[in-house]
Amino acid sequence: MTSFLSTGQIIRCKAAVAWEAGKPLVIEEVDVLPPQKMEVRIKILCTSLCHTDVYFWEAKGQTPLFPRIFGHEAGGIVESVGEGVTELQPGDRVLPVFTGECGECRHCKSEESNMCELLRINTDRGVMLSDGKTRFYVDGKPIYHFLGTSTFSEFTVVHVGCAAKINPRAPLDKVCVLSCGISTGLGAALNVAKPRQGSTVAVFGLGAVGLAAAEGARISGASRIIGVDMNPNRFNEAKSFGVTEFVNPKDHDKPVQQVIADMTDGGVDRSIECSGNIDAMISAFECVHDGWGVGVLVGVPNKDDAFRTHPMNFLNERTLKGTFFGNYKPRSDLPSVVEMYMNKELELEKFITHQVPLADINKAFEYMLHGEGLRCIIHMPA
Amino acid sequence: MTSFLSTGQIIRCKAAVAWEAGKPLVIEEVDVLPPQKMEVRIKILCTSLCHTDVYFWEAKGQTPLFPRIFGHEAGGIVESVGEGVTELQPGDRVLPVFTGECGECRHCKSEESNMCELLRINTDRGVMLSDGKTRFYVDGKPIYHFLGTSTFSEFTVVHVGCAAKINPRAPLDKVCVLSCGISTGLGAALNVAKPRQGSTVAVFGLGAVGLAAAEGARISGASRIIGVDMNPNRFNEAKSFGVTEFVNPKDHDKPVQQVIADMTDGGVDRSIECSGNIDAMISAFECVHDGWGVGVLVGVPNKDDAFRTHPMNFLNERTLKGTFFGNYKPRSDLPSVVEMYMNKELELEKFITHQVPLADINKAFEYMLHGEGLRCIIHMPA
Repeated sequence: MTSFLSTGQIIRCKAAVAWEAGKPLVIEEVDVLPPQKMEVRIKILCTSLCHTDVYFWEAKGQTPLFPRIFGHEAGGIVESVGEGVTELQPGDRVLPVFTGECGECRHCKSEESNMCELLRINTDRGVMLSDGKTRFYVDGKPIYHFLGTSTFSEFTVVHVGCAAKINPRAPLDKVCVLSCGISTGLGAALNVAKPRQGSTVAVFGLGAVGLAAAEGARISGASRIIGVDMNPNRFNEAKSFGVTEFVNPKDHDKPVQQVIADMTDGGVDRSIECSGNIDAMISAFECVHDGWGVGVLVGVPNKDDAFRTHPMNFLNERTLKGTFFGNYKPRSDLPSVVEMYMNKELELEKFITHQVPLADINKAFEYMLHGEGLRCIIHMPA
Repeated sequence: MTSFLSTGQIIRCKAAVAWEAGKPLVIEEVDVLPPQKMEVRIKILCTSLCHTDVYFWEAKGQTPLFPRIFGHEAGGIVESVGEGVTELQPGDRVLPVFTGECGECRHCKSEESNMCELLRINTDRGVMLSDGKTRFYVDGKPIYHFLGTSTFSEFTVVHVGCAAKINPRAPLDKVCVLSCGISTGLGAALNVAKPRQGSTVAVFGLGAVGLAAAEGARISGASRIIGVDMNPNRFNEAKSFGVTEFVNPKDHDKPVQQVIADMTDGGVDRSIECSGNIDAMISAFECVHDGWGVGVLVGVPNKDDAFRTHPMNFLNERTLKGTFFGNYKPRSDLPSVVEMYMNKELELEKFITHQVPLADINKAFEYMLHGEGLRCIIHMPA
């Protein structure tokens, strides 16, 4: 721990810098400035790669913002804190989170929302909120932040509202995956779909988020979990996440909502859409049973998509809800998700299929681009 | 009471028969057959006219089914019961309901649904379920039923699952309006939208159903109730139902969802759509606040309508739900709504703007066609 020595000082460390869209990251010596008002500097121990990193690194269809340090699923230790920070102190174990919890806005004060007005995800902003500047420099050249987290660095600076303090005994190389995708899927099931014991659940898209949703449905006691994916290789893997049946839309002439209705005497009790594909969203809504069915949208759609359905599908007492980060408030709720892991109610090991050192971070990108495995943990140099 | 004398006998009485679509009803001497298995015969004391009666009487866009006895909001006294009926006996006060509760199906057994599989609304069926025949004849000519209720008759026959037994002290000329529209709007607020104390609610369509929804929002303690209607005359009346502000979409260049968002710092907490207009449905969803907003659809759309919105409107944690009959299970729940009236928690008098004897039933149709008033009570001959 360098915490007291480095407070207020620039730290020079290694980070993976994306200089251009779609080009391999380069490990650079980066200067990380000290945390400013309401910020904390975190020593990252491990981080993992999520689709959102790859999506913004490819920068297809968004305004490219480079050079940038990506990364938003991670675990680390608070190294120093800026002015006004009372909730955290050096040595605290934290998960940085791409969305925050200021604790003061209408959303943070509402029991129903986790979409903090101040710290809500902002994919376009590459600088810190307090002064509109970056905390990263390479040879004096500013490097943009990503999602306020930029965890592909040995040290990073985040707003205090974006760091969830967790059980200090939790292994960060496991619970780091709770920073984003796994909590998103798990919470979509546990907090939003809330399937009852013995109920039927359809999960669309069997990537890490979808499998986490299936895991949540399994934990809730769902008796049938129907996985829907275009890739038949996904099913075997999905079984260990509680998926009991598999539907590949390509295998059927009928719309998948009809296939599911036929399998379940009129529709599933709950559905959770994790692919972001607009047709899957519509199917996920229309496959729930009338009278009580609830569809939950998790996957992020394209800018120009339109959700379209006959309004009678609603009037027959179906519900459609969207969720963001599994409706978890990052600071208030993530500690309890970590406890679920510590109490062995939630398995995280099965999500972790690869491990690489920071120097090989581009391998993690390759795995994801080829659809290999679920989560690759990237370890910082010891 | 003619109950014991007439059991098993045909009763000849007066009823308003619709011989042709859109033509004035004719008061006829009608033969009402005794109730068959699981049916009850009810002496109707008063009935009221709802848009659905007028809609199917006009028969624009549906298969016409004539001659028919309309009517589905009413109050009466059980005259006799058919084989197998144990829940009701002659003399019980009941509200006939256009949808039923068999008590046995998955919907009736679910806490979440009121859409009974056996007795769910069926607008096309003009006969009784048990034998596919009618119980009404005029000079030996069969007359079709409507919604299983056909309350524009001094006596009618309904399935036992479509008769809610209520407090015998409740005045039927008031609580009869709870058979359909008022409960539908009230329940949409109390059971589905569930606005919290101090919250903001938008109600689209200020007819009887919308005003009942406003009444429900008022009872729930909503602090602002924004009424939306194209007819500015509605606002004054709406004030006594708790509506505090009024928006006429015609007065604005912006979409009404934007007008409401501007009035409420980002959107209302809850919205309830009671017009059935597809544009209003979309506005009602899009005008709720992100993070926690819930839109509730009540109004019945046209056959070819499409609900369309950007899926991000869901992903930002908005919910859209449809409801049918205010999510009330007719037999289990209507008695408690009657009690709300008896305890003066719910005012029904303000919904009742006209009264006519059965002989003048066509006046009730005129009032509704001209948009005059809310509910017209039709009194049976003493």
